[in-house]
Amino acid sequence: MVVGDILKSTATRYPNKTGVVFGDRRYTWGQVNARVNSMARALLEMGLKKGERVAILSKNCNEFFEFYFAVAKAGLIGVPLNARLKPQELLFLLRDSGARTLIVHEDFADTIEPMKPELAMVNHYIGIGTHHPFPHDFEMLISDHVSDEPETEVNEEDIFTIAYTSGTVGRPKGVIVSHGNSVAGASTMALEMRLLPHSNYLSFTAFFWGAAMGARFHAVLRGCTYVLMGFEPEAVLRTIEKERISGFTCGPTMHRMLLEHPDIEKYDLSSLRSVWFTMSAVPDDLWAKAKKYYGIQCSPCWGMTETSNQGTVLQPEEVDMEGPSSQRLRSIGKPMIGCEVKVVDASGREIPHNERETGELLFRGKGATRGYWNLPDETAETIQNGWLYSGDIATVDEDGYLYVVDRKKDLVKSGGVLVSSVEVERVIEGHPAVQKAAVISVPDRKWGETIKAVVEIKPGCAVTEDELIGLCKSNLASYKKPTSVDFVDALPLTGSSKVSKRELRETYWKEYESRVH
Amino acid sequence: MVVGDILKSTATRYPNKTGVVFGDRRYTWGQVNARVNSMARALLEMGLKKGERVAILSKNCNEFFEFYFAVAKAGLIGVPLNARLKPQELLFLLRDSGARTLIVHEDFADTIEPMKPELAMVNHYIGIGTHHPFPHDFEMLISDHVSDEPETEVNEEDIFTIAYTSGTVGRPKGVIVSHGNSVAGASTMALEMRLLPHSNYLSFTAFFWGAAMGARFHAVLRGCTYVLMGFEPEAVLRTIEKERISGFTCGPTMHRMLLEHPDIEKYDLSSLRSVWFTMSAVPDDLWAKAKKYYGIQCSPCWGMTETSNQGTVLQPEEVDMEGPSSQRLRSIGKPMIGCEVKVVDASGREIPHNERETGELLFRGKGATRGYWNLPDETAETIQNGWLYSGDIATVDEDGYLYVVDRKKDLVKSGGVLVSSVEVERVIEGHPAVQKAAVISVPDRKWGETIKAVVEIKPGCAVTEDELIGLCKSNLASYKKPTSVDFVDALPLTGSSKVSKRELRETYWKEYESRVH
Repeated sequence: MVVGDILKSTATRYPNKTGVVFGDRRYTWGQVNARVNSMARALLEMGLKKGERVAILSKNCNEFFEFYFAVAKAGLIGVPLNARLKPQELLFLLRDSGARTLIVHEDFADTIEPMKPELAMVNHYIGIGTHHPFPHDFEMLISDHVSDEPETEVNEEDIFTIAYTSGTVGRPKGVIVSHGNSVAGASTMALEMRLLPHSNYLSFTAFFWGAAMGARFHAVLRGCTYVLMGFEPEAVLRTIEKERISGFTCGPTMHRMLLEHPDIEKYDLSSLRSVWFTMSAVPDDLWAKAKKYYGIQCSPCWGMTETSNQGTVLQPEEVDMEGPSSQRLRSIGKPMIGCEVKVVDASGREIPHNERETGELLFRGKGATRGYWNLPDETAETIQNGWLYSGDIATVDEDGYLYVVDRKKDLVKSGGVLVSSVEVERVIEGHPAVQKAAVISVPDRKWGETIKAVVEIKPGCAVTEDELIGLCKSNLASYKKPTSVDFVDALPLTGSSKVSKRELRETYWKEYESRVH
Repeated sequence: MVVGDILKSTATRYPNKTGVVFGDRRYTWGQVNARVNSMARALLEMGLKKGERVAILSKNCNEFFEFYFAVAKAGLIGVPLNARLKPQELLFLLRDSGARTLIVHEDFADTIEPMKPELAMVNHYIGIGTHHPFPHDFEMLISDHVSDEPETEVNEEDIFTIAYTSGTVGRPKGVIVSHGNSVAGASTMALEMRLLPHSNYLSFTAFFWGAAMGARFHAVLRGCTYVLMGFEPEAVLRTIEKERISGFTCGPTMHRMLLEHPDIEKYDLSSLRSVWFTMSAVPDDLWAKAKKYYGIQCSPCWGMTETSNQGTVLQPEEVDMEGPSSQRLRSIGKPMIGCEVKVVDASGREIPHNERETGELLFRGKGATRGYWNLPDETAETIQNGWLYSGDIATVDEDGYLYVVDRKKDLVKSGGVLVSSVEVERVIEGHPAVQKAAVISVPDRKWGETIKAVVEIKPGCAVTEDELIGLCKSNLASYKKPTSVDFVDALPLTGSSKVSKRELRETYWKEYESRVH
């Protein structure tokens, strides 16, 4: 089974059912499949050959959704570009991927037009929207081509997308996502998210995260109606009510914006059945709010671009929010169906299940990438003996539940002892006045390194350095507390909305050669 | 993912949850996995090498369940023997498969013991139960071996079982079921049957149907509690109540025995969520009874040993039993997730979707066998251009729903026109006095062949030949009606409880050379 089969089989099974909803546009699965086939044929008729890269710079829209399946059916490789990047960064991705076809949403025409002198390698520009300056038009290409299934032979080993990660350190890395990886991610998620064919799935996180996108095809595989939009909290709440949404997935930051929206009680969210929190370290208060407003118990999960969002999940039955098992909500659960995970120390031995000792989280499964595009060294470092080294630091409790405590590169040192920055951040973010906290190591005359917290305060709130240090002292081993707190208006973010610790560290380390003492 | 991983991952995720229930025996998934590992190690320590065949002759029991996973983890090939076969037939299967290890349930010791002179090729006998005469004992082998995961490397292409089909025509054929086939069947069924990790699944059809068994591992993959037993109608009803069963699958004959059990109303079946009818041609009255007593709308499905039970299903949302779509209950639905199906005429062209024209049902999917053991000609005939020729004759309605109208070899001729025997049987079985009907061609002086119905009457009921021919006349085109009806006490059955039309035809054709005019 390859990515195109996901759409094709759903279109066979539910030809007349509403497939994709974007604003006022509603397409049946039969129509979506026909549009995708026409677009695939258009790309092939432009002369593109199997394995060629096709880049796209767009916000979320039905064309972006169709793009993924069109390249899949044509045997081409999709290169979704992060819409938050600067021109020089976009240029790097286009060069690195070797894309010679570029699809641009009209909103980004002003970004691309001035870059054209440097884009000599791009042969074809295709515009999305009604007011773009590009020679080809997405909609015209569809209406100009027949909608029979394209005949390109595609197999599971073929590359479906190159998904560039945000690259908190150094240059972005292109994760190779094969058809097999993406189908595995979708199949696993279809089981784990428990949607049914007549569920409505909502997708509002950025489509340019290619691997995440592929995994979200679970809703297509299942035959759900796929409602897509950009992220605007009130619009999301309104859409959940209007489209009777059954499930969605996003990170804690977006969940907080939804759950703390002043008008949330005005909306009927009773259709929700399955809501997931991606990434670890969800502050405790969010679980209670989710239960109250979404009306269901949500699931934390873990996955990465490199695993096509296969990974781990904590199922609702595994935790009683009122009972002693409620601490499991801090965990990322256990491996999803078809996945293997282990946590190993520096010598490669599995760590004991005592929730104390830490090690690196390793993953094995069909979703796992074969490596990074053009980066053999990074590939060899990440994939060893068939296991994918995630870079996440985890503990395991005696029941086998996994807890991510840090990113490998985010461990901070205090008096020579390693401390998990996430652990400290979680305590500080428990303070009602704190919006977001980042904990880093900073140089210290006496200790070499010491711990600093950099904190964003919620509008209209106040808290002092002493209060926050005191909070840490009463919740953590003393050596883990920050020795200083700085307050900032906004923490620097990476392209994927995570705090850029690299940028933050630069501020404090600029007069030093190394970033670690 | 291979078959052993299904159990291993469930044991990792739910080590302390009840895994297998058989009578008074209850094992957690952790215990089941440990028992299986020990058995796998025992087989390997006996000197069995990867790819060797291990046969089993047993009724349903937890050891039979464990056998499948033990051979899977040891990289051996399981050969489940049909417990209804005669010694000469068993001998054929043992010789054809080349099995040199034979596991025998104590109840079958009396079958095997007298055969021993002819079983020189069998090196190892392993007995199940407390009173068997065999040198090795299943339970002792488990307790004598450690339960660490065996280290045999197994991949998806490796053969998991050879599943002998009943062979309505000629010798039984061994369907090669690979690990990949079986995992595909289980994964598809896990999605389609919609059970959840905390559901309880009931399995009472014979475990010696190897491919069906593999597909039923969907309940293991999902982490359900797997309750197993033999088939005895009242015991099944009692178990559904006692174990709060969520789902099960069986054919119409067993469903009828459950649904027409005089005491059915005494049992609380309200835990049922997902119940399937395997095979086509479910008489209309059964749907109503199922809805009434099971309390849910059931799903007809289609699959075969050769597809590891991947195939088609009609989902509950696709039919309104009170509305015009209720006729869809006669269909086998549409392809399951990950499956492709088409219906082609003799020249290989897809037939029009008009519910009139018929063709052969072809299947493509990861569950499809690579062929028959030691039968290259039959393999080449069954698998052509990547499609599996099912031998089932089907029509398609304009909405794409599939209807099996006959087996290829069960078409009957009336005045030179082909008639579907199943279509006629369905009408006759609609008569309240009829238990079962089989429609065949018989030689006719005038027409060459004419249609005869052979009918089993329900105890205490009566009906005449004229009544049944009249019923057909008023429900079918006249040329389809049987010209004669014979009443019998019991129709001859194949090993898989289907009517043996071959045997039936023999009675009427014995003085003729060919069986078709």
